[in-house]
Amino acid sequence: MSALELKLARDNGVEPSAMALRTSNPIRQIVDSLTVTGNPDKEPIKLSIGDPTVFGNLPRAPQVTQAIADAAATGKFEGYPPATGYEFARSAVARYFSERVIQVTKSILPDDNDDLARRNQLDSNDVILASGCSHALEMVIAGICNPGENILIPRPSFPLYKTIADSFDLEVRYYRLDASDNWQVDVKDLDEQVDSRTRAILISNPSNPCGSVYSKEHLVSVLAVAEKHRLPIIADEIYWDMVFSGERFIPLASVSVNVPIISVGAISKRYLVPGWRLGWIMLFDRHKQLVNLRKGLIMLAQRICGPNSLIQGALPSILNDVPESYHEELNKILEDQARYCFEKLSGIEGLRPVTPQGTMYIMVEVVPQKFADIESDVDFCSKLLLEENVMLLPGKAFGMDNFFRIVFCGPKGKLGEAAERIAEFAKRHLKL
Amino acid sequence: MSALELKLARDNGVEPSAMALRTSNPIRQIVDSLTVTGNPDKEPIKLSIGDPTVFGNLPRAPQVTQAIADAAATGKFEGYPPATGYEFARSAVARYFSERVIQVTKSILPDDNDDLARRNQLDSNDVILASGCSHALEMVIAGICNPGENILIPRPSFPLYKTIADSFDLEVRYYRLDASDNWQVDVKDLDEQVDSRTRAILISNPSNPCGSVYSKEHLVSVLAVAEKHRLPIIADEIYWDMVFSGERFIPLASVSVNVPIISVGAISKRYLVPGWRLGWIMLFDRHKQLVNLRKGLIMLAQRICGPNSLIQGALPSILNDVPESYHEELNKILEDQARYCFEKLSGIEGLRPVTPQGTMYIMVEVVPQKFADIESDVDFCSKLLLEENVMLLPGKAFGMDNFFRIVFCGPKGKLGEAAERIAEFAKRHLKL
Ligand SMILES: Cc1ncc(COP(=O)(O)O)c(C=O)c1O
Ligand SMILES: Cc1ncc(COP(=O)(O)O)c(C=O)c1O
Repeated sequence: MSALELKLARDNGVEPSAMALRTSNPIRQIVDSLTVTGNPDKEPIKLSIGDPTVFGNLPRAPQVTQAIADAAATGKFEGYPPATGYEFARSAVARYFSERVIQVTKSILPDDNDDLARRNQLDSNDVILASGCSHALEMVIAGICNPGENILIPRPSFPLYKTIADSFDLEVRYYRLDASDNWQVDVKDLDEQVDSRTRAILISNPSNPCGSVYSKEHLVSVLAVAEKHRLPIIADEIYWDMVFSGERFIPLASVSVNVPIISVGAISKRYLVPGWRLGWIMLFDRHKQLVNLRKGLIMLAQRICGPNSLIQGALPSILNDVPESYHEELNKILEDQARYCFEKLSGIEGLRPVTPQGTMYIMVEVVPQKFADIESDVDFCSKLLLEENVMLLPGKAFGMDNFFRIVFCGPKGKLGEAAERIAEFAKRHLKL
Repeated sequence: MSALELKLARDNGVEPSAMALRTSNPIRQIVDSLTVTGNPDKEPIKLSIGDPTVFGNLPRAPQVTQAIADAAATGKFEGYPPATGYEFARSAVARYFSERVIQVTKSILPDDNDDLARRNQLDSNDVILASGCSHALEMVIAGICNPGENILIPRPSFPLYKTIADSFDLEVRYYRLDASDNWQVDVKDLDEQVDSRTRAILISNPSNPCGSVYSKEHLVSVLAVAEKHRLPIIADEIYWDMVFSGERFIPLASVSVNVPIISVGAISKRYLVPGWRLGWIMLFDRHKQLVNLRKGLIMLAQRICGPNSLIQGALPSILNDVPESYHEELNKILEDQARYCFEKLSGIEGLRPVTPQGTMYIMVEVVPQKFADIESDVDFCSKLLLEENVMLLPGKAFGMDNFFRIVFCGPKGKLGEAAERIAEFAKRHLKL
């Protein structure tokens, strides 16, 4: 730069807003802080990002591909949809998910459930479409909480919750998940975290990063805390039905009697199309407690005018034409990979994987005392990358020290190879 | 509602955040305040929404349709792109638009322009993709301005600027556009509006709602104000090249010597696909004044993870394969419709259309004194809807009283029919 240019840059450098400066992505920060580059002598294996399409081994339902081709071919989905989404697309979401909620209610709350079930019937007005579940979360969190107020989020949790809260200058308070009890909510801790400035409780079920799936009884105990404090629950149910044998996914709305449930989701994971950026907010509002919030969310949707029209055009077919058997098949594949990962990792000294019950994630505890020269989860992941070229996310990215997360979407070949490298690495660093 | 339910709703009603309450869409408000419904005896004609696809008369380039079909068929665009967009897609935007900027610079700044031109060469790092130009504007405005600070926006202007500013608790200050001088910026007023809390000047060119297109000389005079106050300019150039015969579109970056230009755009209007929600931010930053802002924008992009992957996949082909002749043809059709509209309206007593130089909009002045029972632009549009079932947006939606805007995208049949109904309506309401 010339002297004049330097002067111009100094004089007239445009500073970003405080909001921009507050908006940080912990994953990016952690990945950046893993300053090392992977061992160039070994083929890289990335099990760090929650993108089920990365390895190409998971089969996409042909109906999904067909649906988008059909929607594009009609030439009808090029104009502006309403900011909250086309009525027909919102209606498809309302019908698909509320039918499932009602089925679950009827099967698990056998007495006197007709009224409960009926009131969980959503219509298109109860749904707002969003540009991915991320955007749904942005609207809900910013739509419910003011600066100086807080929402309760789990520790560990998907980092975007905090990213959004930080960006809008909102507080988060963490409640504890118990690794020794299948990552269930520590209900006492949850209760104690509520203060006079708490606006909502966020529950992630099935959970990223834990891979846990909550029972009806557990959800009821969480609902009791929300009801006691008269708080709504934001249910991040993006892994809807992605559970393994012996487990059942219970949508939170299906067991809530008095607590309003704001359920967010997306086609991203269930249909293996995270790049398509289509998600939703569903308001399960039996007692008309969300009437004003709904108006607020509709206003917020105006800001960027909703998700892509073509995907909205394809949405009814994606939801209605992909058979249940596809989801069962996908769950089987994921479960098989999960078990394989778990078994490979459970024999390794110094590591303790927690059995996943669903999703695409397994959390593994690292016991630093067992190792000669590994100080933390970040240190573990950093050295593993350097020596073995395997990329994992340390628990710190999720607010949880001494764990790392493995994404088990890849084929067994890759997962096995990664597990072997992890085993060798761990052995090499064990305390003698 | 039962007594218990009412109690629950009262006790536990969830209030939206102040942000949600602040976020309002003036168009929606105005449309809602047109409480009347259209005359049911007449076929409705809606010339209110800036969606060029509504009537189906404007031809989409076949390359656009092909590009999306091809992108979908590859099966490669289902995973998460980076939050700022795929590198290849950002690179396509950088190349396409900076080449055009450079061409313009070379042709209109003949002396000593090589260095200037060269420095407007963008690469992929200078581009951030967004979910439509709306999202690009959201990131830029919220990324540059803090509560208590302001940005200068034109009066009249596209209402989203204020919607975004209100939502984030930022101020806007209006500078005057001069209807009697082709809606040019009142440069003196612009200069006087700047205060110590001003962070940026926003220029809309070609303009929605005015249909105006600025000359090189005019842009230079606007740049002088920005330079004097050392402010960056946000150039909303979504109507890039959509200009009529005798006019030339001058991208602001092509004539800026020292002022950093943040240009926002989208495929929405140029390619007739507003529903596809793909836009961008381009940083023309010769003097490295936007280095920090760029980092802030990249952080903000993490919040919702960018636009749809399929459209990103199609973007290089959309930009590179649609021939210039397509844009010329589209401009001809629009110009023909614009002229037709203008002529039909200019004979009407009490109304004064302003000749559009580009875009899809014409502004028409309403002179209330000429009418017996029309108080304002809102009153005009409201009664017109009631009596003639023609829907227009009153100037108030754009911050400008005593005008209305007509979208002239529709076929001449519709435009003519609308103009005739407006003529009859105006005649009926004239002062005797
Ligand atoms: C729990 C959870 N919620 C939300 C999201 C964001 O989903 P989307 O890609 O649809 O924005 C993710 C993505 O990883 C997630 O794991
Ligand atoms: C001047 C201007 N900027 C931005 C936009 C928003 O564009 P998009 O639909 O790509 O979000 C519009 C849409 O009408 C516009 O007229």
